[in-house]
Amino acid sequence: MRRNIALTLSFEGSAYHGFQRQKNVPSVQQALEEAISYTTGEPCTLYGCSRTDAGVHARHYVCSFRTDNRIPADRLPFALNARLDGDIAVSAAADMPPYFHARHSCSGKEYVYRLLNTPFKDPFLKSRAWHVPNALDLEAMRAGAQQLLGRHDFSAFMAAGNSHKTTVRTVRDLRVTGEPGGEIAVTIYADAYLYNMVRIIVGTLIYCGTGKLLPQDVARILAERIRKHAGPTAPPEGLYLNRVEYDDPSRWRAPDGG
Amino acid sequence: MRRNIALTLSFEGSAYHGFQRQKNVPSVQQALEEAISYTTGEPCTLYGCSRTDAGVHARHYVCSFRTDNRIPADRLPFALNARLDGDIAVSAAADMPPYFHARHSCSGKEYVYRLLNTPFKDPFLKSRAWHVPNALDLEAMRAGAQQLLGRHDFSAFMAAGNSHKTTVRTVRDLRVTGEPGGEIAVTIYADAYLYNMVRIIVGTLIYCGTGKLLPQDVARILAERIRKHAGPTAPPEGLYLNRVEYDDPSRWRAPDGG
Repeated sequence: MRRNIALTLSFEGSAYHGFQRQKNVPSVQQALEEAISYTTGEPCTLYGCSRTDAGVHARHYVCSFRTDNRIPADRLPFALNARLDGDIAVSAAADMPPYFHARHSCSGKEYVYRLLNTPFKDPFLKSRAWHVPNALDLEAMRAGAQQLLGRHDFSAFMAAGNSHKTTVRTVRDLRVTGEPGGEIAVTIYADAYLYNMVRIIVGTLIYCGTGKLLPQDVARILAERIRKHAGPTAPPEGLYLNRVEYDDPSRWRAPDGG
Repeated sequence: MRRNIALTLSFEGSAYHGFQRQKNVPSVQQALEEAISYTTGEPCTLYGCSRTDAGVHARHYVCSFRTDNRIPADRLPFALNARLDGDIAVSAAADMPPYFHARHSCSGKEYVYRLLNTPFKDPFLKSRAWHVPNALDLEAMRAGAQQLLGRHDFSAFMAAGNSHKTTVRTVRDLRVTGEPGGEIAVTIYADAYLYNMVRIIVGTLIYCGTGKLLPQDVARILAERIRKHAGPTAPPEGLYLNRVEYDDPSRWRAPDGG
């Protein structure tokens, strides 16, 4: 039986066109697959927990692959990091049961969106936060966020042109923390996400913060399910995949193609 | 009389070959002078508080220039930031008395050197900290740092081949903070610095932390005044100019060439 290995890693996404391998542009998947193939001496197909857009970051990302190589799992982070440039760092590797799959076994993910609410940009947060110089009412942002908690059809908060089997998602937590005039974070935890869902939610909450929308408009937008009624898509550089949680192993299904 | 304007700024130094203008490579000075010239319609010569090496960062940097342009000082940060990419940000501008000079009027500077003492690198600290995976004894580093406090000839802590009028400097503060196995900071405040002095001090304190030197060796190295007896030059990416302090205006001298 081939080993099924899960990797935990973080990456600074500025240099990559997202996690997923694409033709002619650098991706996190390609960089990792090349490092794994070099280490195992086998072709590698990696299954990631999330696609992530170009420029999005991950503090905690999980992916898995199959191999016949016998390298001890605890040596893998050192071996792979030696083949990666410093934008991606593998922090752990573990042998998993055969049915574990980084995406299908996932029960929920936490994203953090960082906002810089100062008059001037911060060179140390270039590509790491969205600079919003406008005055922001955090209480209005929090009241807007409240409307999105729970199980809803999030069609209004999905990039057009995408097909998901269902557009119902459960948002278990949505918090706005920090200080007006300083750093602000929007933290969201959901079972799964529609395409661009976090970034559209953040763009909508910014509209609440600047007064372009009232907090109660958010419930109406959710009910109307029309993308253009929501706020803009916040830029990718503020978005961080922060935490990935997994089902109880008894619920893991067979991976597709793994 | 021409105006003498001081700018306060921060920069992420990774993309620059230091502050000072050099032929054929990007510098912070060149980027700023071009933005100022565009704004004032005059050629600009900028006087910086410190040279800084390639890859070194500044959270607080001061420089000054002369102009006949009448733009209100409080509009300058907006005008200049609009011409700069996000690696440099001007946070303040002020009209200064004629004899103020960003370097000659300076009474002291604080640098912070960031170390990452974890087994694996952190993608978010690439180019922002020195990754030292070895076990570090912080008490030994602190005991070594103690030997350097005060007024000494720092010849042993100066890059070879440089000529300073005097090699005597006064280190008023030198602290090692943080946690072994996590982030560590070395903070130093001195009246002025020799070339590479902070980076050689940090390299020497790392030798204390790993046991290659004993804390009491630092006093001996200081007394011997031989560069090669000290530790290695720590890499530039961990170094941040953190604070610049100025003399009482009554002590400002005429700037050279300003």
